Amino acid sequence: MSEAPPTPLAISLGDPAGIGPEVIAKCWDSRDEFRLPPFVAIGDPRAIASVWDGPIEVIDDPRQADAAFDFGLPLLQLNAAHSDTPGHPSVAGAHCSLDSLEIAVGLARSGSAAAVVTGPVAKEQLYSIGFQHPGQTEFVAERCGVAAGNVVMMLAGPTLRTVPVTTHLPLSQVPRALTSALIESRGRAALRGLERSFGIAEPRLAVSGLNPHSGEGGQLGTEERDIIEPAIAVLAAEGWRVSGPHPADTMFHASARATYDAALCMYHDQALIPIKALHFEDAVNVTLGLPIVRTAPDHGTAFDIAGQDRADPRPMAAAIRMAGHSAALRAEAP
Amino acid sequence: MSEAPPTPLAISLGDPAGIGPEVIAKCWDSRDEFRLPPFVAIGDPRAIASVWDGPIEVIDDPRQADAAFDFGLPLLQLNAAHSDTPGHPSVAGAHCSLDSLEIAVGLARSGSAAAVVTGPVAKEQLYSIGFQHPGQTEFVAERCGVAAGNVVMMLAGPTLRTVPVTTHLPLSQVPRALTSALIESRGRAALRGLERSFGIAEPRLAVSGLNPHSGEGGQLGTEERDIIEPAIAVLAAEGWRVSGPHPADTMFHASARATYDAALCMYHDQALIPIKALHFEDAVNVTLGLPIVRTAPDHGTAFDIAGQDRADPRPMAAAIRMAGHSAALRAEAP
Repeated sequence: MSEAPPTPLAISLGDPAGIGPEVIAKCWDSRDEFRLPPFVAIGDPRAIASVWDGPIEVIDDPRQADAAFDFGLPLLQLNAAHSDTPGHPSVAGAHCSLDSLEIAVGLARSGSAAAVVTGPVAKEQLYSIGFQHPGQTEFVAERCGVAAGNVVMMLAGPTLRTVPVTTHLPLSQVPRALTSALIESRGRAALRGLERSFGIAEPRLAVSGLNPHSGEGGQLGTEERDIIEPAIAVLAAEGWRVSGPHPADTMFHASARATYDAALCMYHDQALIPIKALHFEDAVNVTLGLPIVRTAPDHGTAFDIAGQDRADPRPMAAAIRMAGHSAALRAEAP
Repeated sequence: MSEAPPTPLAISLGDPAGIGPEVIAKCWDSRDEFRLPPFVAIGDPRAIASVWDGPIEVIDDPRQADAAFDFGLPLLQLNAAHSDTPGHPSVAGAHCSLDSLEIAVGLARSGSAAAVVTGPVAKEQLYSIGFQHPGQTEFVAERCGVAAGNVVMMLAGPTLRTVPVTTHLPLSQVPRALTSALIESRGRAALRGLERSFGIAEPRLAVSGLNPHSGEGGQLGTEERDIIEPAIAVLAAEGWRVSGPHPADTMFHASARATYDAALCMYHDQALIPIKALHFEDAVNVTLGLPIVRTAPDHGTAFDIAGQDRADPRPMAAAIRMAGHSAALRAEAP
């Protein structure tokens, strides 16, 4: 990568009993094939050694990562109270994954790391040690001093980016939760993120409808007319290139995708179904609206296959590569 | 096609001012490339001649279609009160499209046609002449003496088939409309359709959840536990191979699709987003639960591009090809 940032990316291992350590180590193995910039992992070396027999370069300053990267997986060492068995999460492991996340974010905040990539955590384990946030995204937002409502999740793949307006809500609560103000705020964050993190000068946002056929002129629902269209009008009046509301089922084929840079979707599955149908192996979860770059692979801890050498490193590699690109773009920005 | 049925397929032109005539004529043009069995169109020859300059073979008995098929597009002639301009639908055209549909279904019912393929109609035009059905599917069901509730729409592409449990409802009404009985009935119809129309001996049905992460154990909604799981249990107890409820966002990538023959989805866009994202050019709308074979391309009249030689015939070709396969399977069935 010619545009590699001068500082490494910081990668939190995630839960030591999940597949995080394995996929991060495999990314180092295939760093040339995957075209990855230098990175430093943060966590317990035993979590990696128990699933991988490659070289680990324990360092104590991220500035050593670039030089170490050719010889082994650079690691800032955390020691858990006891070593986990892959597939069997523990309270000690939860503490370790939280410490790893905390340090990774701190390094990016201080400028010692160019970006943060987060490994998958087990929310239930984190909750058991007092973690108060719905997920890592909200934790990172708080550590960055940004209100959780002002950050947005983008799922980004090679030919499609989607942003859900609402996320982890029962479907029956989605219509009530949608407001024009929320759509505007998510839309603005998505558009600014396309500029800042993807280097797109005049980003185009396509907004989906909520109902089948985008409500079919009110026959199949009125949220398009009452909530979505006014939000699109506000964004357009601010000078953004925004279109819609589009029927969601005809937004995601190749020629439709070519007409926009991101799709703003009304609910979780409307955004996640197309991205995972098209880009299951290389969709990246990007948090927009932060002062730092943060990406994550779009999968969980997968405890059921941890420690079996079956985990696919491609999603983590895509997250690392995208973090590197975004960090380089921000470093070059005026 | 070695298994071509002895009688032709009957194709209704759809609205004469839409793209139906153009895509049907183009299918005849490319009948060898698309590997299409003999078919006969039913409609006004002027609707075809105004958008296509190929040969039309006007016949007055479908039994003449096979012989005529080598020389021109076989057509059973209907004359509208006046000739439409492409892109400008009229009341006379609506009458013509309804007559065409009526005759096509009648030919299949009587055994004079092997199957029905329907061109796209304009519902608003049909409503203006007193058409009482929500769409062509319900009309065909009634003419076949089947209750509309007992037929199901399947969207079928080369690597994915989906069946929506609910269809043209505002999203806010979907949770209320879902019942175990409805899921069971749609699931049964889908499974029988896989056997009968696709020749799959032991079909596998994957059932989606309604909520994000399929409700995440009740944290994100209870419809999975209260409505969907009991329906799956009933179908399984009947001996069907049914799995789920699955999180909808992880059901549609390639390796997931390989584990089932059809996905039963809870609402319109959950079924339509993945099929159109993956198979926009060759998704076919198949009506299951009828005594006849009926397919349709999964697009509308597209009045905005009618008469401009821009319409893509591949969806219609896929509908014709699938109708031919299903008709052959039924003809061979014991």
